Amino acid sequence: MSSIEEAKKVSSETPEHQPVNGDATDVGSKTKDDFDLAAAYVSDAQYNRNTFFDTSPQAVRLYQLYNHRGMKLFIYVFIIVDLGLAVFEEPALIPDMPIWATGVVELVCLIAFTARLVHYAKVIPHDKFWMDPKNIFIIVIISLSLVDMITYVGLKTAGHFGVRWSRVLRPLLLVNITEGRQLRRAFRSIRNALPQIMYVFLLFMFSVLMFSLMGLKLFGKRGLKTVEGASYFTNYLEIVFDLYVLVTTANSPDVMMPAYNYSSFFAVFFIVYILINTYIFMSVFLAVVYNNYKKYLKEEVRQLVKAKRRKMLRAFGVLQSGAGQESSVSKAHWTQLVCLVQPGISSGHRELLWSVSDDDKKGSIGKMAFVQLPDLLNIQVITMKSRPHPLKIWLPGLYNSAGSRLVRRMVQHRVFVYVYDVIILVNAVFIGLDEENPLISNAEWIFLALYLLEIVLKLYTFEPRAFFNKHEFWNWFDTIIVVAALIATIATSALKSSGYTSREILDIVFILRVFRLIRVVDSIQRFRAIINTLIKIWPTILTFGQLILVVYYIFAMVGMELFKNKIQFYGPNSTNPHKDYCGNPLLQGTAFAKNNYCKNNFNDVASSFVLLLELTVVNQWHVLASGFTSVTHMSARIFFVLFHIVVVIIIINIFVAFILEAFFVEYTLDKSDLQTSLEKKIEELELNFTLDETEGNLVDAMETNHDDLGPSQAPKEKPSLVFKIASRRYKTVDGLLQRMFEADLSLEDIDEEDEENPNFPNPVFGAV
Amino acid sequence: MSSIEEAKKVSSETPEHQPVNGDATDVGSKTKDDFDLAAAYVSDAQYNRNTFFDTSPQAVRLYQLYNHRGMKLFIYVFIIVDLGLAVFEEPALIPDMPIWATGVVELVCLIAFTARLVHYAKVIPHDKFWMDPKNIFIIVIISLSLVDMITYVGLKTAGHFGVRWSRVLRPLLLVNITEGRQLRRAFRSIRNALPQIMYVFLLFMFSVLMFSLMGLKLFGKRGLKTVEGASYFTNYLEIVFDLYVLVTTANSPDVMMPAYNYSSFFAVFFIVYILINTYIFMSVFLAVVYNNYKKYLKEEVRQLVKAKRRKMLRAFGVLQSGAGQESSVSKAHWTQLVCLVQPGISSGHRELLWSVSDDDKKGSIGKMAFVQLPDLLNIQVITMKSRPHPLKIWLPGLYNSAGSRLVRRMVQHRVFVYVYDVIILVNAVFIGLDEENPLISNAEWIFLALYLLEIVLKLYTFEPRAFFNKHEFWNWFDTIIVVAALIATIATSALKSSGYTSREILDIVFILRVFRLIRVVDSIQRFRAIINTLIKIWPTILTFGQLILVVYYIFAMVGMELFKNKIQFYGPNSTNPHKDYCGNPLLQGTAFAKNNYCKNNFNDVASSFVLLLELTVVNQWHVLASGFTSVTHMSARIFFVLFHIVVVIIIINIFVAFILEAFFVEYTLDKSDLQTSLEKKIEELELNFTLDETEGNLVDAMETNHDDLGPSQAPKEKPSLVFKIASRRYKTVDGLLQRMFEADLSLEDIDEEDEENPNFPNPVFGAV
Repeated sequence: MSSIEEAKKVSSETPEHQPVNGDATDVGSKTKDDFDLAAAYVSDAQYNRNTFFDTSPQAVRLYQLYNHRGMKLFIYVFIIVDLGLAVFEEPALIPDMPIWATGVVELVCLIAFTARLVHYAKVIPHDKFWMDPKNIFIIVIISLSLVDMITYVGLKTAGHFGVRWSRVLRPLLLVNITEGRQLRRAFRSIRNALPQIMYVFLLFMFSVLMFSLMGLKLFGKRGLKTVEGASYFTNYLEIVFDLYVLVTTANSPDVMMPAYNYSSFFAVFFIVYILINTYIFMSVFLAVVYNNYKKYLKEEVRQLVKAKRRKMLRAFGVLQSGAGQESSVSKAHWTQLVCLVQPGISSGHRELLWSVSDDDKKGSIGKMAFVQLPDLLNIQVITMKSRPHPLKIWLPGLYNSAGSRLVRRMVQHRVFVYVYDVIILVNAVFIGLDEENPLISNAEWIFLALYLLEIVLKLYTFEPRAFFNKHEFWNWFDTIIVVAALIATIATSALKSSGYTSREILDIVFILRVFRLIRVVDSIQRFRAIINTLIKIWPTILTFGQLILVVYYIFAMVGMELFKNKIQFYGPNSTNPHKDYCGNPLLQGTAFAKNNYCKNNFNDVASSFVLLLELTVVNQWHVLASGFTSVTHMSARIFFVLFHIVVVIIIINIFVAFILEAFFVEYTLDKSDLQTSLEKKIEELELNFTLDETEGNLVDAMETNHDDLGPSQAPKEKPSLVFKIASRRYKTVDGLLQRMFEADLSLEDIDEEDEENPNFPNPVFGAV
Repeated sequence: MSSIEEAKKVSSETPEHQPVNGDATDVGSKTKDDFDLAAAYVSDAQYNRNTFFDTSPQAVRLYQLYNHRGMKLFIYVFIIVDLGLAVFEEPALIPDMPIWATGVVELVCLIAFTARLVHYAKVIPHDKFWMDPKNIFIIVIISLSLVDMITYVGLKTAGHFGVRWSRVLRPLLLVNITEGRQLRRAFRSIRNALPQIMYVFLLFMFSVLMFSLMGLKLFGKRGLKTVEGASYFTNYLEIVFDLYVLVTTANSPDVMMPAYNYSSFFAVFFIVYILINTYIFMSVFLAVVYNNYKKYLKEEVRQLVKAKRRKMLRAFGVLQSGAGQESSVSKAHWTQLVCLVQPGISSGHRELLWSVSDDDKKGSIGKMAFVQLPDLLNIQVITMKSRPHPLKIWLPGLYNSAGSRLVRRMVQHRVFVYVYDVIILVNAVFIGLDEENPLISNAEWIFLALYLLEIVLKLYTFEPRAFFNKHEFWNWFDTIIVVAALIATIATSALKSSGYTSREILDIVFILRVFRLIRVVDSIQRFRAIINTLIKIWPTILTFGQLILVVYYIFAMVGMELFKNKIQFYGPNSTNPHKDYCGNPLLQGTAFAKNNYCKNNFNDVASSFVLLLELTVVNQWHVLASGFTSVTHMSARIFFVLFHIVVVIIIINIFVAFILEAFFVEYTLDKSDLQTSLEKKIEELELNFTLDETEGNLVDAMETNHDDLGPSQAPKEKPSLVFKIASRRYKTVDGLLQRMFEADLSLEDIDEEDEENPNFPNPVFGAV
């Protein structure tokens, strides 16, 4: 082919001049359906959805509806309502709700879940639908719930005893809905780590059993007594339980004292036991959980990245012009696609992304650049128009006067921050003092005025829309707290002058006052850096919050069925004669009753959750457990030990593993390549925007030795449209995860482009 | 230079033909002094010593004496004696030792330390000696100890009150002696992590103070009472302490109960507090400690590797023949050097190492191969002569008979292991039963006989010297336990038949019996793998043991001065009227006395250590602390909080960090390159030896799915001398550390050979 012919060919491939053709791989101008399909692929890639949706236009539109934010909100609301039913159901926190009412609400929820599932079934091919375990799971949960409801109502109306056993299934909906991706991943990594945890656990239990046997032989025949006067180390199963509790440290040093009092040498037994089982084995558990967690997560994220790339290649296939190496997507098509995927995107932001993708300014982008689109969209870019302060426009004479300039310089000076830090500290002392004193209560007004003055001065100095940008967390925090405190304080004094005092409103006032003090943290660079890191890992903490919710809910439901109303709480001012033993004579003289733990019961869902939290914290869990075994049966211990194994040994360790990993990512990987290239482009185009130079992450702040740079700086005179990368906050948890393993993945994933296989196998992300 | 001239030059450089020359960099046959010097360098490189010893022959010989195993033992014995003096000194565990006696012993110890230091001063140049902070530290410690001893004796003889304050300095000797390398490194990594820990700690304390203020405002005015009837959340400092204790979970849920009983909503305050401070902040502490530990350790190990290479280059310089690229060390020189460095090395092992180094069989090795020598020496190679079973030689007819062969096949069969596992389990049940029963006590003889039979059968089947190889931990363990149990059981029955029963001997018998059960672990592959991993990280755990010893000793000395004899323990059978309140009326009615904690006191060094361990375990530490504040002053809390911060927040986290890191190394890095090449060479030469194929590390065992392969296999008929790499156990902790970072280090360190700078600066490994 001559060069002239080649040039002709290239020019003839300019998309606008091609005949209309529905076939995705052909060149040509695209239909609305093509864009819808491509947008669905890009959106899936952006949010790491792995749905095998039907590519027919109506299915794609249904799929877009399925993924609509409102639909997701709708399904979460119904799940929360369904879970929340536990508040009204027997044993109820808020009683007097008839069975038919909760039944109807549950039925509505089940219908909503069914509707959502039917919608999903319409979106994806039938064979795929029935192969996906999470759909089967939802069908099973809905059916079982219906069966349970019917039998329960039947039993109740016939006057029989019935148990709402299907309630333990409810939280599993949270795991199995399409949106529960992160949660499923967390459960999968637990499931994958289980075999190894098992081996360590068995060895650990072997060690506990051996020590128990030794303890029985050493102490059993010596006739020792515990502080309560019970016989000490005489029953093997009791010893096993006591030593298991010692691993959790909850009965240290009490379990040792009788033997230690008898002979100092016996302390060696317990010291060796604690060293081996509490310190070494518990560390090994963390190591095993952490290592497995990391390993499987890595593999999953690798698959995610692959799947994302495949989806983008499909989208590229739909929109491409030209064939083979020459194929590309024109700017017009790209723009249309981006507008579909992210309707709210500003044109400036879009142009910026295009200029990053089309670095050579060719007017069209190839496969490699196109594939990066979802990652680019996932980088939070703050677009804002750089504009002068409104006062500068309205009252230029006043705003530019010498006095005004002095005020603005003052506010920007670091001494301004120091002065307010001192004010906050003085305020803290005043809060600590007795608020009944009129001097103190009046001082509150002064402090409020000072804080308001600060906000006004800052608004005078900085452009208000930049100051109240949605990413300026601390500015919003300060303002909301100060304004809320002002309102609450005014409300209190109004009430007080009308002779009425509400303890509750006073509580809120105090909380808001103390919250105001948190601002000190904001003004110290290193503290802010730590807090920023914590805020960044927040989405993950929320995923673990869901995980904990699922496990707690299941244990709460089981616990309520097992232990409801066995222990009664009578309130601190009650004069009920049963108060001293929680309304159950079996508790007379037990540590449970002595410690006044009566309110730690399974009589309603809120108490159950608080109790489970106390069990998670571990301390005194054996006392709580023994309270429930006293009122039921020795085997009730199984419930508590199982809870300890599941929550403390497995879930809390996974939580710690995640925090560690997330911190290390913050420490090592500073920015992704893509983000850097975006930042470079922003700087290249001189579109960068700085309200606050001192913001950084924990690493920057700790590694560099420079001191606090003082408060925010005013935006410089810059082009009318400026951008800022919202530090390194990720829109999705997947984004953080992918970043966690980016360093290891990037190379190997560029290797295998496997475009020759368009019928790619979707990685199986089954349900738990 | 023509190629003929070049060839001539090379041939003329064959070392044996060169004139004698003492200058190290010259070619030529070497003097004894040269070998001593080179051996000193190699030995330093092998054990990662960073001593700037004088290179004069007499200094080198003195230096070799200084590093002699006996000399090290000598100094450790004196340190242990010095530390052990606390047992006899006031407040004494073993009283009635006159002051002059402990004084004389301490003086002897101080003289020994001085002698060791003088020896060291003779070895290294004067300027280097005075620049090394650890020497200065030792001099200061010795001088202060002397001053303290003199003033104390003076004060005592004059009848005044005296405090042996220099006792807190004693454990610092452990850190500052030349051999305390690992310990110094641990302290350095703590010191380096301190600034970052500080920032997180300040933020954490800020959070505690804020919550305390909020707690004061929320609960202080409500007139709530604790279970003990004390006022609840009314004193700010008390609240801070209570909430600090809550972070350690020690007073959960008690601290919450009054507020929770008042209103369920107040539980939110405590839940949020626990989430933020116990879960998130404590995880962040671990993350910060771990990250810093890793970072600085990496840097230190990088420097260690560099220093090792430099030392080896110096040794090479001393022994090399030829110049520039052609320079090499001949086999004869190499052999002489290795014999000097490791006198006990077998010639077979030496030849093996040589064949690995001189892979091309040139008869001499270059710089790169020479530099690897210390690493090769650090790989534990088990040399053993493969020989037939002695019975085969003595009684060939009997040993090779069909019956004998059947027995041997039986013993090697996996069913043999299963049978003994069942025997052990039955034995466990028998141990658990009442041993007073004659049936049970007679069964013990049967079990003993069965275990002895097993050992005899194994010795019959396997070559005894291979079976009792020093690396066959489990064989030794089994035999020692069984033989000891046999002796103890015979002793007990002998005593019993003579009408005398000793509870202590019975205790030993029981412990040995239970120990025998541990053998079950040995026969389950996955369990053995976990144990092997734990054994491998043992040296590090020992380093942390020393670290803990130093910190505990200091806190024990201070605690003994502060709290000695404030709390008395009267023994369980005492009828002393003061018994109920530990001999101190101030303790009447306190939780400390009620829980019978009287023996947890600072009245002697052993009790102090047990008490400090209980404080480390954390549970009930606030009760223990409040006991001591009751008998002294509120400010005594500072001692306990300080201990918590130092030991629990810093040292335990470093311990967990190390266990995690060591486990990950076991998981990821399987073998070092060098070890693999050594193993390859052994296999190449068909010199490999396998007594026990199933041995592996945790990773191998867990990743592969194959089941337990059964017991040891008999050595095959092989060459008379066989080798085996002692799995991946490292001789030195440094070896493990270097391996931990090998993957990251190898490349960058090969880059910089910096031989052009022979006057290399020794990396400054100062004292703490």
